[in-house]
Amino acid sequence: MVDFASEQEMFDTMQEKLTAAVISDVLDSLGARQQGMRADIRPVYPGAVVVGRAYTVLTTDIFKIIDDPYRGEIEAVDSLKPNDVMVVCTNRSTRNCFWGELLSTAARARGARGIVIDGYTRDVAQITKMQFPTFATGMSMVDSAGRGMVIDHGCPVNCGDVLVNPGDIVFGDIDGVVVIPKELEKEVIPRALEKVGKENLVRNELLKGALLRDAYAKYGVL
Amino acid sequence: MVDFASEQEMFDTMQEKLTAAVISDVLDSLGARQQGMRADIRPVYPGAVVVGRAYTVLTTDIFKIIDDPYRGEIEAVDSLKPNDVMVVCTNRSTRNCFWGELLSTAARARGARGIVIDGYTRDVAQITKMQFPTFATGMSMVDSAGRGMVIDHGCPVNCGDVLVNPGDIVFGDIDGVVVIPKELEKEVIPRALEKVGKENLVRNELLKGALLRDAYAKYGVL
Amino acid sequence: MVDFASEQEMFDTMQEKLTAAVISDVLDSLGARQQGMRADIRPVYPGAVVVGRAYTVLTTDIFKIIDDPYRGEIEAVDSLKPNDVMVVCTNRSTRNCFWGELLSTAARARGARGIVIDGYTRDVAQITKMQFPTFATGMSMVDSAGRGMVIDHGCPVNCGDVLVNPGDIVFGDIDGVVVIPKELEKEVIPRALEKVGKENLVRNELLKGALLRDAYAKYGVL
Amino acid sequence: MVDFASEQEMFDTMQEKLTAAVISDVLDSLGARQQGMRADIRPVYPGAVVVGRAYTVLTTDIFKIIDDPYRGEIEAVDSLKPNDVMVVCTNRSTRNCFWGELLSTAARARGARGIVIDGYTRDVAQITKMQFPTFATGMSMVDSAGRGMVIDHGCPVNCGDVLVNPGDIVFGDIDGVVVIPKELEKEVIPRALEKVGKENLVRNELLKGALLRDAYAKYGVL
Amino acid sequence: MVDFASEQEMFDTMQEKLTAAVISDVLDSLGARQQGMRADIRPVYPGAVVVGRAYTVLTTDIFKIIDDPYRGEIEAVDSLKPNDVMVVCTNRSTRNCFWGELLSTAARARGARGIVIDGYTRDVAQITKMQFPTFATGMSMVDSAGRGMVIDHGCPVNCGDVLVNPGDIVFGDIDGVVVIPKELEKEVIPRALEKVGKENLVRNELLKGALLRDAYAKYGVL
Amino acid sequence: MVDFASEQEMFDTMQEKLTAAVISDVLDSLGARQQGMRADIRPVYPGAVVVGRAYTVLTTDIFKIIDDPYRGEIEAVDSLKPNDVMVVCTNRSTRNCFWGELLSTAARARGARGIVIDGYTRDVAQITKMQFPTFATGMSMVDSAGRGMVIDHGCPVNCGDVLVNPGDIVFGDIDGVVVIPKELEKEVIPRALEKVGKENLVRNELLKGALLRDAYAKYGVL
Repeated sequence: MVDFASEQEMFDTMQEKLTAAVISDVLDSLGARQQGMRADIRPVYPGAVVVGRAYTVLTTDIFKIIDDPYRGEIEAVDSLKPNDVMVVCTNRSTRNCFWGELLSTAARARGARGIVIDGYTRDVAQITKMQFPTFATGMSMVDSAGRGMVIDHGCPVNCGDVLVNPGDIVFGDIDGVVVIPKELEKEVIPRALEKVGKENLVRNELLKGALLRDAYAKYGVL
Repeated sequence: MVDFASEQEMFDTMQEKLTAAVISDVLDSLGARQQGMRADIRPVYPGAVVVGRAYTVLTTDIFKIIDDPYRGEIEAVDSLKPNDVMVVCTNRSTRNCFWGELLSTAARARGARGIVIDGYTRDVAQITKMQFPTFATGMSMVDSAGRGMVIDHGCPVNCGDVLVNPGDIVFGDIDGVVVIPKELEKEVIPRALEKVGKENLVRNELLKGALLRDAYAKYGVL
Repeated sequence: MVDFASEQEMFDTMQEKLTAAVISDVLDSLGARQQGMRADIRPVYPGAVVVGRAYTVLTTDIFKIIDDPYRGEIEAVDSLKPNDVMVVCTNRSTRNCFWGELLSTAARARGARGIVIDGYTRDVAQITKMQFPTFATGMSMVDSAGRGMVIDHGCPVNCGDVLVNPGDIVFGDIDGVVVIPKELEKEVIPRALEKVGKENLVRNELLKGALLRDAYAKYGVL
Repeated sequence: MVDFASEQEMFDTMQEKLTAAVISDVLDSLGARQQGMRADIRPVYPGAVVVGRAYTVLTTDIFKIIDDPYRGEIEAVDSLKPNDVMVVCTNRSTRNCFWGELLSTAARARGARGIVIDGYTRDVAQITKMQFPTFATGMSMVDSAGRGMVIDHGCPVNCGDVLVNPGDIVFGDIDGVVVIPKELEKEVIPRALEKVGKENLVRNELLKGALLRDAYAKYGVL
Repeated sequence: MVDFASEQEMFDTMQEKLTAAVISDVLDSLGARQQGMRADIRPVYPGAVVVGRAYTVLTTDIFKIIDDPYRGEIEAVDSLKPNDVMVVCTNRSTRNCFWGELLSTAARARGARGIVIDGYTRDVAQITKMQFPTFATGMSMVDSAGRGMVIDHGCPVNCGDVLVNPGDIVFGDIDGVVVIPKELEKEVIPRALEKVGKENLVRNELLKGALLRDAYAKYGVL
Repeated sequence: MVDFASEQEMFDTMQEKLTAAVISDVLDSLGARQQGMRADIRPVYPGAVVVGRAYTVLTTDIFKIIDDPYRGEIEAVDSLKPNDVMVVCTNRSTRNCFWGELLSTAARARGARGIVIDGYTRDVAQITKMQFPTFATGMSMVDSAGRGMVIDHGCPVNCGDVLVNPGDIVFGDIDGVVVIPKELEKEVIPRALEKVGKENLVRNELLKGALLRDAYAKYGVL
């Protein structure tokens, strides 16, 4: 039904036309009902929207400063490719802070479209100025050396209670972050674009004063 | 002391002149000291203020898709009357999402002034554009079908640890949501309007450099 | 290395040039690795930055209205001196609300530069209008009478899991609040100003497309 | 209906014949529906049962070692009278530990029947050996000096989310702790003794194989 | 491999020979890796072991006393059949208490083997005396009237973060509760009985002083 | 003051004569006031007492089954030496389960005296039968393969909010687990043995009916 000249164009279209809510509804209709991340993973600045292919990273808390403390983090960032979104599992650390401005600058230089962290970021003022879409559970000013370590990247991770595989599509906006498993993307994207249209019809009906039950009976969309 | 031509005028005046803090202080002075909701029920956009009569809804989490999954939700929204504020207890669900843009559009078409949810909403970008005052514990992109069900409406509910009865007045601003029990509204509203005036006097005194103890001794207001 | 004409000038320079993240990195390098407060102590309005000398306050929840209920609070506020930042431990109360607009007005009249509360504030709309830098764990509209009591001030307190002594320097921005122990300030401030410069060099390198590993190898800063 | 020769006899009878569940049901029937403490206040040894008059204590966390650090604790314990149960609000401290073996020994020497703490105890092995009924949210081996301080005693306190006034009756068993407000005790105790009898009839019916609906229809007790 | 004369015999054998850990390992080996309930669902007395077919119940918190408040509960209990284990989702209520002694008596009279509640029970002293295997998140003395309501029974429920369908086998011991989906029971039970044997061999090897790596290399079981 | 023929004898004496509370009090008196672990690390069977030298292990959650999934765990257990106590940081996992019966058997065969886990164990019935002192935050029946991985051993770890270094002494009883830093053990152990004696004197005084204030004034011990 829909065709895109490139991944870039596909993600740009999705970013412009879709919402996390519409994508989630389509995933529901296909039986993929556990794809929305926990509600405490939030955009760090108003208006942030992210969409792209997951590049996954797994970290853990540590309690001494290891040799070459940033090696894993640097490797992971330097591995990013155009249209990637970094998806980071910190195993719910409230002690480490994984991300910051310089890492955002480096990630963008590789073509990455944003980052989703089940954990903290810092340098939020500068990230906001750069408008590098960053979703996180919170902010903290601490550095990762002696606090966290990258265990693996490009592996399955749990982020916000959703299992994310490298190559899955992640979409985040003000309502939160939803994950489209790679094998469903061909079905999800065209259906989502179509559903957006129907919702416009219902909205118009309601704006004219229709009862919800009549608008829903007519269009079957809520 | 004060008299209003209509409920509409009363709520408009309250929205313009009062704050949740002043109302809470007056409720305290009348011995109604448990009327402020838990601090995690927040406005979903900056500047949201809501005031009106509670129309209560009670929901629960469910784990299968029932027939006619939106029936209760539709009934509740279509039951709203002018100046109502929907007050929703989801029994603290972090899995369901009760509210969204089309429901906001329908609720406004019935004359409702806003919604307070002990639970999640979605479509926050569009709700912000509409400026439909929405207070919630968080945001999530998921639909309610197969996740939650309306059990009852127009019944007593617990919302943010306050027992709310249909017809109580709810007032929410950036400091949170406070509930005026129906039987106290005649006393609370005029006293609150009066207290606002006194605070202006104290503020002026302090701006001129008075010590807090002297300003408080003079006006008895903090 | 750096010299300031006055405390006022020192704090103004810090506020203009430094960030919580840079200060935290320098503290780390000196072995003071537990100086960042818990991530749920947040600025209550966008852009709030605070820096100054800690004036500490300790409160507890109570369950009756005591005589002269605001005495401790008034005493503490009237004790503030120019360049102070009030640092309040409420023992993690979610029932009391320590701060508000009139107290902010009084504190500013004494020369205080802001407040950091491990607890709640109210009157956030007015505090935002005043631009009085306020960091808190949340907002609630309730008054403190019959809910909380000042136990002591000018004593060691735990705020956001950091032990703060009167006279320590606190610095808060969007990334959170960090504490510089009094005995380290001579070392921390010049080093932090210096580190800011280095980060600019790395950023430029990355903006030109350098790999992170090369930029880090060259400057040793991340 | 029932009459007791002394408080001692009344409490002994209650301890032998009643349960927290039966007392809670009777309180419910009188409209006092918020009298059961939070479920994390537990007996520290199997079989502990406590009943007596509340002697209340309020503590708070502190962060320095004060002069005469145990003064308040000693005063409170030395104030206990026969048939008292100490009821302690620590404002939910997870850092201090209020109680221990020597305090239990001293309390028993004054005639106290036990203690209920919204907070921690230590010396649980010895307290078990003494069989001094102790209910707490947990155990920790730390001393209170420099960690907590008694603010007041003989005052209203919140313990396990129930407001307890000095002189109220508290009853704790394996199902938790319930509070009988002083003004209701005359009604509650005889009704509770009576309800115990009815439950025996229902149990017998069910043991003979009756359906629950029939047994409930016959006796109106569940 | 194994054959049983009856369900009764199958469950009796499982109860005697298996553990939750062995069953979980076999489920893991079949790719069913989310079958262990959350660790806060615990046996209420030492030594409780439960196994049987799930009969599911779904409840929600309510805030008024409804007509015929126990109807749903009574219906659910009277529907139990021999070898059933009631599995109850209270939507994580900490305010209601679903279960008690008389219900246990009635359930046993219908042939039920026990109950697993994601929520509270009461009458734990009597339930212990009866030795009716009860697993719950805690204990509370309150009655359910005006606090909770049965929404449905015999429906899919979430219990301890596991989706349980009526007819699934549940097995609980001191290590927690695990669920065998109906469609896997034919494979799981014989394999589990077999694995128990192998563990005995490893244990013997280790008791003789073997290094863990040698014992594991030899038997492939840990 | 005290001298021991061997580590074995020292630990046996400590186990027989000391308590976690007495050790914590002596650590307090030396200024080491953060040595008591979080109260949710509990003995898994009644009467468990552990004392020995910490052998530390650090694990993290993972989300795929790695090759040789038990390698790190086996290595760590096979590294144990006589009088060791394994101290495990799982980074607060509620999804993995680190320990079990066969590992306990292997650890005891190496001479280990017990284990303290900031995380879960399984096989608690068998561990109880073996009387292998095990302290954990909970119990779960799941295996570690595909859920957790050993990152390092013999490194500093955080366990129950205390930083533990290999070689520190850990002591756990019903009141919880306390850590004696290696460099303080020479001072702590004799002082603790001495304090036990003084407490006996106070107890006797109190048993004879002395007021707490008089007993405390006389002996300075509480």
